[in-house]
Amino acid sequence: MKTLYNFSAGPSVLPKEVLLDAQKNLVDFEGCGMSVMEMSHRSKEYDIIIKKTEELFHEVMGIPDNYKVLFLQGGATQQFGMIPMNLLAKNGKADYVITGIFSNTAYKEAQLVGGPTGKTISAAGSTKEENYKRIPEQNELKLDPAADYLHICENNTIIGSKWKYLPDAGKVPIVSDMSSCILSEPVDVSKYGLIYAGAQKNIAPAGVTIVIIKKDLIYDPLPGTPTMLNYKVQAENDSMKNTPPCWPIYIAKLVLEYLQKNGGLAAMKAHNEAKAKVLYDFLDSTDFYKSHVVAKDRSIMNVTFRTESDELDDKFIKGSVAAGMSNLKGHRDVGGMRASIYNAMPKDGVEYLVDFMKKFEKENK
Amino acid sequence: MKTLYNFSAGPSVLPKEVLLDAQKNLVDFEGCGMSVMEMSHRSKEYDIIIKKTEELFHEVMGIPDNYKVLFLQGGATQQFGMIPMNLLAKNGKADYVITGIFSNTAYKEAQLVGGPTGKTISAAGSTKEENYKRIPEQNELKLDPAADYLHICENNTIIGSKWKYLPDAGKVPIVSDMSSCILSEPVDVSKYGLIYAGAQKNIAPAGVTIVIIKKDLIYDPLPGTPTMLNYKVQAENDSMKNTPPCWPIYIAKLVLEYLQKNGGLAAMKAHNEAKAKVLYDFLDSTDFYKSHVVAKDRSIMNVTFRTESDELDDKFIKGSVAAGMSNLKGHRDVGGMRASIYNAMPKDGVEYLVDFMKKFEKENK
Repeated sequence: MKTLYNFSAGPSVLPKEVLLDAQKNLVDFEGCGMSVMEMSHRSKEYDIIIKKTEELFHEVMGIPDNYKVLFLQGGATQQFGMIPMNLLAKNGKADYVITGIFSNTAYKEAQLVGGPTGKTISAAGSTKEENYKRIPEQNELKLDPAADYLHICENNTIIGSKWKYLPDAGKVPIVSDMSSCILSEPVDVSKYGLIYAGAQKNIAPAGVTIVIIKKDLIYDPLPGTPTMLNYKVQAENDSMKNTPPCWPIYIAKLVLEYLQKNGGLAAMKAHNEAKAKVLYDFLDSTDFYKSHVVAKDRSIMNVTFRTESDELDDKFIKGSVAAGMSNLKGHRDVGGMRASIYNAMPKDGVEYLVDFMKKFEKENK
Repeated sequence: MKTLYNFSAGPSVLPKEVLLDAQKNLVDFEGCGMSVMEMSHRSKEYDIIIKKTEELFHEVMGIPDNYKVLFLQGGATQQFGMIPMNLLAKNGKADYVITGIFSNTAYKEAQLVGGPTGKTISAAGSTKEENYKRIPEQNELKLDPAADYLHICENNTIIGSKWKYLPDAGKVPIVSDMSSCILSEPVDVSKYGLIYAGAQKNIAPAGVTIVIIKKDLIYDPLPGTPTMLNYKVQAENDSMKNTPPCWPIYIAKLVLEYLQKNGGLAAMKAHNEAKAKVLYDFLDSTDFYKSHVVAKDRSIMNVTFRTESDELDDKFIKGSVAAGMSNLKGHRDVGGMRASIYNAMPKDGVEYLVDFMKKFEKENK
C-alpha cells in the first residue's frame, strides 16, 4: 500500500519542498561537481553548509550568543549518558523528573554512568504510578538547589504529553530533551541550560543530534569520559573533532530555510495547534476513542488514543494502513494508537485521519 | 572551480551509479510514497533495507556466521573509546601498535578511558620516531599474551602506509581500524577479533560506523559504560537500541550492491592496484616528488608525496584545484600532498593527476 500520510513518531515526514531540493542537488550540488555526500567536511564547500546551519539555528530559534549549537551523533539516547558524564563534574548531583518512558531511561542512564563514582541521581518528581497520564505540578517537585542540573523531557513522544510550563529550578540549569517538540513553536532558550534533540522528528533525517548548550556549562567532564562524549572538546572543535554526519546536517539546513521562508516558529505553532485541535476536538466529542493524557497536558506533536480493546486497536491499525496511513500503531511499550503530527504533516493529513476515525467508529460501535 | 576528480580522504567520492539511484528514489522510494529519510526505523520498509545491508556485508566480505555486523555512530574516533570500554572488561590489558596519527590517538584514548580504573595500555610497537614512514616488522613487536586485544590501524590514511601482513598475536584477538581500506580488497575476517570503519571512505556518506565483531568478544563492558557504547546492547538490539543513521545505511546497501555487480572485492583489488601503480610508478621515476612511505609499506588507498618545499607544495595544490582536482592538500598535521584513490575513483582520475604532476614538474624544475 502506498503511503498517503505518514504518522511516524520518527524518523518522520519531511517537507516535500526540502526533499525536492535535496533530490535536485543530490548528484551535483549547485554545479560544484560533487554530491554533498562526497564533500570533505573540511572543504570550503561544506564549511559554508555547516556554518550556515548553525547560524540558522540561532536565527530561527532566537538562540542567544552565550549558547553554542553542537551537531553530534548517537541520538537522544547517547545524550542520556553524555549529559551526566559532563555536567556532574561540578557537584555530582542531578534531579530528574520522570514523565514518560524516555525520561525514565534518561534517569536510569545517569545512574548507570554516575553510579560507579558515587554520583547522586534523584527522582525530583514522577507520574509513573499514574501511567504518565499527566505532568507534575511545580509544588510536587522536590528540587535540590545544589544539583548540577534538573532534567526534563519536554514532550513525551511515546505517551503524548507535554510540559506546558517550565519548572522554576532557581539557579539550577534546566536540561530539556526536546527531541519531539523542537522547532514546533517558539521557546525562550535563555531559560535553559541545555536543550537537546534527535533530528529525526522536526529537524532532519536520523543521524544528527542537536545540542544547544549555555557556554558556562561547558567544563571538563568526569574522568574517563570518551573524547567524542566531551562537550568541551566538541565545542572547541565546532562539532568537527572528527567527521560530522554531513548529510543530515545539510538537510537540517534546508528544513531551517524552509521554516524561515514560511513564517518561522510562530507560524509553525499556529499550524501545529490548528492540526492538533482537529484531532483533539474529535477525540473529546466521542467515547469510542479514549485519549491517554489529561487534557491540560496533551502534546500537539504526538496524539495517543485507543479504543476499548486491543483487538479493535489492531483492526483500526490494519484499516488505517489499507487507507494509506502509515505508522499509527502506538509504541510497543504502551500499545493503542499514536498519531505523530510534526511540522511537516499537513492539516489535510489530520482531517483525513479524523474522517477515517469517524467511519471506523460508525462501523465498529 | 567545478570538481572533475575529488581526491578527498573522506568523506569522498561515491560511485556515480549509486548517486543516480539514490537521487531517483529520494522523494518516493520505489513507489512506497515515502523517502527513505522519512521511514520509521521500525517499519517493514526500513527493516528490509537494514537486514539486506547486513546480509550484503556478510556476502561481499565473506564474514563468517560467528561475527555480528553493527551499524553504529560517532565514527572511528568513538570506537577509539568504545573498544577499550568494552574489551578491557576481561583482563584489563591491551596492546597498541602505533603506525600513524590515528593509531596514536586510539592509543591515547584507551589510556583516557581505561586510566581512571587502572587498566594497562601498552605500546607494543611504534614507528613514531621515524615519522611513521614504515610499518614495524613482527620481530619488533612486544606482545603481551594476556592482553585482551592487539590494536592496529591497518591503513594509515594521513601517512599513506598499509600493513601488508597481519601480525601473529597468538590467541590475542586483533582489533583493526580499517576505515580507509575496508572493501578495497578481500580480507580473511576469521583472522580478526574486531574490524571497524567509519563509512565515509569506501562504504557510504559520513554518519555510520561499521563494526564487525566476533561473537565471543561480546561481553559486559566496564562499569559506567554508556548504553550506546555497549557492544552487547547494540548486538542484542541488532543496532536498533535507538534510531540508527538510516540514510547512510541505505547508501551503504547501494554501494555493496554496486560492488557485488562489479566483481566483488577481488575485482576491486585489481582496480585499486592498477590505479596505485600508475601513481607510484611515476613517483618512482622522478626525484622532483618524494614519497613519504617506504616502498614495501605504501598504501593503495592514500598516496602521500611532496616537492622540495612548502611553497612549491602550495603552488601545486592551487594549480591542481584550478585544473579541477579537489582535496589534494595533505592532512594539516603532516603537510605536502595526498591523493586518496578509493574504490570509486576511476583510473582516468589518477592518469589525469599524473599528467598534471608531469606538467607541473616540467614548469617548476
